[in-house]
Amino acid sequence: MKDRTLLMIPGPIEFEPAVLQALGAPTTSHVSPGFIEVFGRALERMRDVWQAPTGQPFVLAGSGTLAMDCAGANLVEPGDRALVLSTGVFGDRFEDLLARYGAEVDVIRAPIGETVDFEAVDSALRGSSYKLMTATHVDTSTAVRVDAERFGALGRAHEVFTVLDGVCSVAGEEIRQEAWGIDVVLTASQKAVGVPPGLALLVVSQSALCAWGKRRSRVANYYADWEKWLPIMASYEKRVPSYFGTPAVNLVAALDVSLGQILEEGLETRFDRHRRLGTACRAAIRALGLVQVPAEGCEANTLSAPRYPAGVRGGDLLPAIREAGAILAGGLHPEIRSEYFRIGHMGATKPGDVLATVGAIEAGLRACGHTFDSGAGVAAAQSILFG
Amino acid sequence: MKDRTLLMIPGPIEFEPAVLQALGAPTTSHVSPGFIEVFGRALERMRDVWQAPTGQPFVLAGSGTLAMDCAGANLVEPGDRALVLSTGVFGDRFEDLLARYGAEVDVIRAPIGETVDFEAVDSALRGSSYKLMTATHVDTSTAVRVDAERFGALGRAHEVFTVLDGVCSVAGEEIRQEAWGIDVVLTASQKAVGVPPGLALLVVSQSALCAWGKRRSRVANYYADWEKWLPIMASYEKRVPSYFGTPAVNLVAALDVSLGQILEEGLETRFDRHRRLGTACRAAIRALGLVQVPAEGCEANTLSAPRYPAGVRGGDLLPAIREAGAILAGGLHPEIRSEYFRIGHMGATKPGDVLATVGAIEAGLRACGHTFDSGAGVAAAQSILFG
Repeated sequence: MKDRTLLMIPGPIEFEPAVLQALGAPTTSHVSPGFIEVFGRALERMRDVWQAPTGQPFVLAGSGTLAMDCAGANLVEPGDRALVLSTGVFGDRFEDLLARYGAEVDVIRAPIGETVDFEAVDSALRGSSYKLMTATHVDTSTAVRVDAERFGALGRAHEVFTVLDGVCSVAGEEIRQEAWGIDVVLTASQKAVGVPPGLALLVVSQSALCAWGKRRSRVANYYADWEKWLPIMASYEKRVPSYFGTPAVNLVAALDVSLGQILEEGLETRFDRHRRLGTACRAAIRALGLVQVPAEGCEANTLSAPRYPAGVRGGDLLPAIREAGAILAGGLHPEIRSEYFRIGHMGATKPGDVLATVGAIEAGLRACGHTFDSGAGVAAAQSILFG
Repeated sequence: MKDRTLLMIPGPIEFEPAVLQALGAPTTSHVSPGFIEVFGRALERMRDVWQAPTGQPFVLAGSGTLAMDCAGANLVEPGDRALVLSTGVFGDRFEDLLARYGAEVDVIRAPIGETVDFEAVDSALRGSSYKLMTATHVDTSTAVRVDAERFGALGRAHEVFTVLDGVCSVAGEEIRQEAWGIDVVLTASQKAVGVPPGLALLVVSQSALCAWGKRRSRVANYYADWEKWLPIMASYEKRVPSYFGTPAVNLVAALDVSLGQILEEGLETRFDRHRRLGTACRAAIRALGLVQVPAEGCEANTLSAPRYPAGVRGGDLLPAIREAGAILAGGLHPEIRSEYFRIGHMGATKPGDVLATVGAIEAGLRACGHTFDSGAGVAAAQSILFG
C-alpha cells in the first residue's frame, strides 16, 4: 500500500516498526494469559500517559468518534445542558453528538483560526446550570490549540464536568488530566499515541463515573455503555479475563508497545520534542512566505495548517509535494477547505522527517510557481531542530 | 504473545500469514489512492462473499457487538415490535440491545442446545405486527446453527425485516443473503472472515435501507448511524475519498486480502471444507465418548461444543490440552458454563489443524483420567478429513 514516502498527515502518521510488528504478530486468544498481561499493562500505562492516577481507562475497538460518543452517551441524559467550545469541525461534531443524546447544547464558537474566548466561557458558566462542557484540545481542522489547563480550571470552578477531545493531542501536547481536573480525556490510536487506527481510548475521572452511576435513564447507546465495559477494564487490569465484546487483540498489543515507548521517552521530553517539531515547522512556513490558519499563540504543536500562497492550488501542490517525498493532507474545515493544507508532526515523527517534509514542500511550491528564497524553509527548520 | 500452539477457539483463530502481513505493513493515509482502491475493493468483495449483489456493505471499526448495535439502532424506532429468536447468549444479547432503542421485544428462546421451533415462529409472526426479527446463525455460546434460509423465507412471507447475526458463520457456513431474502447479515472480522479482531461488518438490503430512510425519529446512536457512514461507503466504492471517522486502515487492508483469498478458494468449496471440518470434529468427539451441547441436526460447522466427561474438570482439561498443543475455549453460556468447552474450526483452519487438536484433546483427556480407545478420536477425524 505504501512505499517509503513519508506519511505526514495529521494521523495516521508514521509508526514505529516495533508497533507494526506487534500489530502483525500472530493473534492470540483474548483470554490467554499473555494477552491478559498485555491488556492489563496497557490500561496501567494509559493512566501514566494521561497523568490520571485515579482515572478509569477504557479501550474500545472503534475510531476517535466512538471515543467522543462514549463520553457523550454516558454523561448526557435527556434535558441536561451542555456547553461546547468549538474551534473547528470537531467542536461542531460535539454539538451534533450531544444533542443526539438529548442535551440542550449551547456553543461558544471561535472564529476560524482563533481559540475560544475564555472570558465568555466564564460568563456563560456563571449564569447557567450546565452539566458538562467540551473542548477540542487541538482541532485537526484548524490546527488551533485550546488552553486545556484553563478549561479544566473553569470546569472545576463552576462544578461542570469537562470532556477534552484530545484526539490530536494526547501523548503529544502537554496534558495533566488529574492535576488540571479534567473529567474525560479521549483520543484515537492513530495520532500522537502512535498506533494504527482502530482504537478509541479514554480515561474517565472517578467523579464522572460516580455521576454516571447515578443516571436516571439508561445510556441510549448499547455498544458505548460503560455498564458493559467497566467490569471488563477492571478485570483485565486485575489480570483476570472477562468478556463482553472481543477486544481488538492485535491493536491492543500494538498499543501496549507504543505506550511503553512513550513512557520510556518520558512525557516531559516528549512534550518538548513536539514543541520543537511544531516550532520548526511554523518557522519554515513563515520563511517560505506562507501564513498559517491558526493565529499566533494558539498554534498546535502536533500539526500545522498553512494557507496556500496566492496563485497556488492544492490540487497542484499536494501531488507535487508527494512526488517530492511527503504525503500531506488537504483542508478539512468546510468554510476554507480549498484554502489551506495540513502537515502532521507527532508521535514517531523525527526532526529529520520535518526537514524532509519542508524540503518536499519547497520543491512542490517551486513547481507551482511560488517564489521564495530556495532553502529558506529548510534552514529555518534546521536552526530550531538541530541548531 | 503467542508461540506456534494452535489457536482453536471460536475466534480469533489462526490467520493466514498474508493477512497478518497486510495488517502489520506501514500504514498509509486513509485518503491515499492506494488505500481508496483497497477499501473500495473490500466493499465489492463483501457483496460477493455475502452473496448480496444489491446489498450495501458497511465496514466500521468496532467489535461484532457494534455490528449488532448498528443493525438494531438503525432499524428500530421507539415502539417498534421485534421478535428475537434466541439459541444462546448472543440471541439474548439482541433482546437487551433492541430494547435499548425502544423496541417492544418478544423472544422465542430455544432450550439450550436446540434450534428454534420455526412453527412457533410462524405462529408468532402470523398473529402480530413485528417490524423486525433477529436470529443468531451460529450462537457461539451453544454451537447451535439455525436454518438461515428458513429464517429469511419466514421474514419475507410475513413482511418482517430479518437481521441475521452471522458473527460465527459468514464465510464459513452457507449464506446466500439475497436469494434467501435476509435484510441484514452481520459479522466480526476475527471469525470465519479470517482477519484479527477490530472490524464490524454488515451488508444491508436496499429495502431495509429504504425503511431506514423513512424513519420518523433520529437514530439514537451517533457513531452507528448509517447517515454518517452510508456516504462514506458509497464514496470509497466509487474510488472517491471521503471522511467521517478514520477507517481502521491496516485492518481494512487485511480484510481485503482475506476476502480475496476467500473468493479465490470459492464459496462452495469453502462451505464444503467447513462442513468437512465440522463433521470430522464431531466424529472425533463421539469416538472419545463425549457428547455435544448442540442436538443432532443443528450443530454448527464452524465450532464444536463438547461436554466434559464425568469426573473431568475444565480447569484441569483445558490447560492439559494447551500443553499438548491447542488453545481451546471454556464454556460461555451462563447456565452450563462449567460443563463444556469449545473448539473453533473455521477460516484458515486446515484438516491437519483438526487432527492436531484432536490429538491434543486425547492427550488432555488421558491426563485427566478419562478412559477411551487411544487414537480413536484422531482416527475418526482422519477418516473424514483424509479418507
